[in-house]
Amino acid sequence: MLSCNKERMEDKIKTFSKFGDTGKGGITRLSLSPEALDAREEFCRRCTALGMDIKTDDMANIYATISGEKGLPAIMMGSHIDSVKQGGNYDGILGVLTALEAAETIVTEKVPHKHPITVIVWTNEEGARFEPAMMSSGVITGKFDKDVMLASKDTEGITFKEALEASGYMGEIENRMTAEKYKALVELHVEQGPVLEDEKVDIGIVEGVCGMINYEFTFIGQADHAGTTPMKYRKDALYAATKTIQYLHDELDKLDGKLVYTTGKISAHPNIHTVIPDLVKFTLDVRHQDPEVIKQALEIIKAIPNIVEKCEASYEEAWSRKTVNFYPEFVGYVEKNAKEYGYSAKRMYSGPGHDAQFITDVIPTTMIFVPSENGHSHCEKECTPVDNCLKGANVLLQTILDIDKN
Amino acid sequence: MLSCNKERMEDKIKTFSKFGDTGKGGITRLSLSPEALDAREEFCRRCTALGMDIKTDDMANIYATISGEKGLPAIMMGSHIDSVKQGGNYDGILGVLTALEAAETIVTEKVPHKHPITVIVWTNEEGARFEPAMMSSGVITGKFDKDVMLASKDTEGITFKEALEASGYMGEIENRMTAEKYKALVELHVEQGPVLEDEKVDIGIVEGVCGMINYEFTFIGQADHAGTTPMKYRKDALYAATKTIQYLHDELDKLDGKLVYTTGKISAHPNIHTVIPDLVKFTLDVRHQDPEVIKQALEIIKAIPNIVEKCEASYEEAWSRKTVNFYPEFVGYVEKNAKEYGYSAKRMYSGPGHDAQFITDVIPTTMIFVPSENGHSHCEKECTPVDNCLKGANVLLQTILDIDKN
Repeated sequence: MLSCNKERMEDKIKTFSKFGDTGKGGITRLSLSPEALDAREEFCRRCTALGMDIKTDDMANIYATISGEKGLPAIMMGSHIDSVKQGGNYDGILGVLTALEAAETIVTEKVPHKHPITVIVWTNEEGARFEPAMMSSGVITGKFDKDVMLASKDTEGITFKEALEASGYMGEIENRMTAEKYKALVELHVEQGPVLEDEKVDIGIVEGVCGMINYEFTFIGQADHAGTTPMKYRKDALYAATKTIQYLHDELDKLDGKLVYTTGKISAHPNIHTVIPDLVKFTLDVRHQDPEVIKQALEIIKAIPNIVEKCEASYEEAWSRKTVNFYPEFVGYVEKNAKEYGYSAKRMYSGPGHDAQFITDVIPTTMIFVPSENGHSHCEKECTPVDNCLKGANVLLQTILDIDKN
Repeated sequence: MLSCNKERMEDKIKTFSKFGDTGKGGITRLSLSPEALDAREEFCRRCTALGMDIKTDDMANIYATISGEKGLPAIMMGSHIDSVKQGGNYDGILGVLTALEAAETIVTEKVPHKHPITVIVWTNEEGARFEPAMMSSGVITGKFDKDVMLASKDTEGITFKEALEASGYMGEIENRMTAEKYKALVELHVEQGPVLEDEKVDIGIVEGVCGMINYEFTFIGQADHAGTTPMKYRKDALYAATKTIQYLHDELDKLDGKLVYTTGKISAHPNIHTVIPDLVKFTLDVRHQDPEVIKQALEIIKAIPNIVEKCEASYEEAWSRKTVNFYPEFVGYVEKNAKEYGYSAKRMYSGPGHDAQFITDVIPTTMIFVPSENGHSHCEKECTPVDNCLKGANVLLQTILDIDKN
């Protein structure tokens, strides 16, 4: 079977890990920063060397294309090049580099194909410098208002618009991905979780992105002196919150085993060791692929009484996301190709969001996951062994070629 | 029976509520601030007008004395004049003003007494500007190292030494309270809790100050992505903390009903809604008058396993205080006098600390509590109705005279 080249794959990963190198095994490559621009330059240099045509759109998304038969829409593969602060060498960039490696294989091996094949680099997926995340795929698919995005500021007060204009990568709005010009997207990404590694599985066949709800809970009690207030007089907002977290665990654990839920954030006021807290807030993030299970989780939230341990309890949705299902035919290609290469594979849903989830509203889309060592992500320890990267690149390559044929 | 004067009592409270008036019903009168110095000046002016002799010691504690028979030690009454930020008009200052009113009654009614009678103002009881609390009573009773205290800085970088020297109230070390020169201290204070008001009791007969332990708990888990980490892989430090708070509640509730315990402070790291917390800390403050009950509480803490919900659990004592018992004879005088005035009274222990708890190691000491409306304290809502203040002043006066006689 056709295979990408391991040495080239390794070289790509090593080369790009220099752009934003923290010196501690990871990178800080915020969107449109000098480090990200260096990475873009290297990407374009390599694409040009392969004879690819490079265009950028008004959001600085880069489209590097191997030509195909005239009049046919292009097939896209790729991901993002930016990272979080002190992130790793795989999240995002591996999707670009495996796509580049697949393109390089097609070019150097002269692999026949009808459709143009585009390696895409999405601008500002992380939202770590300019909020929100998945900004540019969001703008071109109509999820976000472009003017609002242009006004987004980094911590130094620089707007996204200013960074965009200064980058040299701002192109024409006409170059945006549309359903007329593009027929598919396949995005490879690291799993960012421990399941594939733990179950010794090479390839994650991503069926979609989990729906999620994110709620903020508030408990209002009364701030009294820890030393003078007998227990029976207390309205302890932290105890009310504690009881509620336990209730949520007890009830949510009864739902489907694939449900994940997290209280990541908690605050207490006045947060003094000798004062009974009068205001406690915490968040609850709930994710599952099945909207019915999310609905059941919501029922559990709604069953929380107005008064918990004599404190006022309330909650509100901070945001939510509906489950995204990828294009079943493409999901099937990924499964078939993993099998044909002899790689172990597992159908799964993505917990985190990815650019692909926006694009799938416009053109048929799917994703491929490769394992994350110890599940680490968004940190310098992030790692996917090069053999796994190569397996991912091979499945990506063959899936693109299947889309091209069918 | 001899009685203090309600109009004078009310005038004193009103006058002193101007020094540091926040305009919202309370005061900010940090130790040795311009507002506190204004209050000291008014205090000294009134004492001088009553013919009292005024001395200060090296910690700026003020001793205003009505003379007595030569060679006899003085009897002290009083409290502190400083407040917390946005505090009330009763905590501390009421102990000074009831003592001043008792002294004024003795002087104006020419009440016979043998011992000199001193109204004391302790410097920096709150520790709100210069840490720690009860600084000056602590220094003169050997609890705190004076040099360390002098180096204590406020938020603007001013040391206690600088504030002391600038105050005009720094006197001689020879003027400090000693067991040779003073035979007793009675400190009146607001309860700072809801019990007296709730049980419709006029006078708290304070038997002592509750012992306390304060522990900080730490839970170390693993920070993973909320969307990618199945529940069974998680080491959620916040859930481990929640389980432990619940355990502490369940077990501590089985101990004596007078036990009070509080988790006032909690923090989670990284405190992001989409990340499982890897580090959570919380405090536990436990108070009871009986050292045996405190010991039982400690056993409950010590029974926490090293691993809770797959997270490392540890704890350490932040500080502790042994139970302080006041002088039983004086406690008896307070009880007798409340009864003779026809006031309802209740024996109780103080939850918070007071200067009296340090002084009791040197000379016989007791305290008198008056009700706090709604238990409010250390806030602008702090209130004790003037009738209750007068009742407290009367019991204080009579107790001082009992000590004088016996």
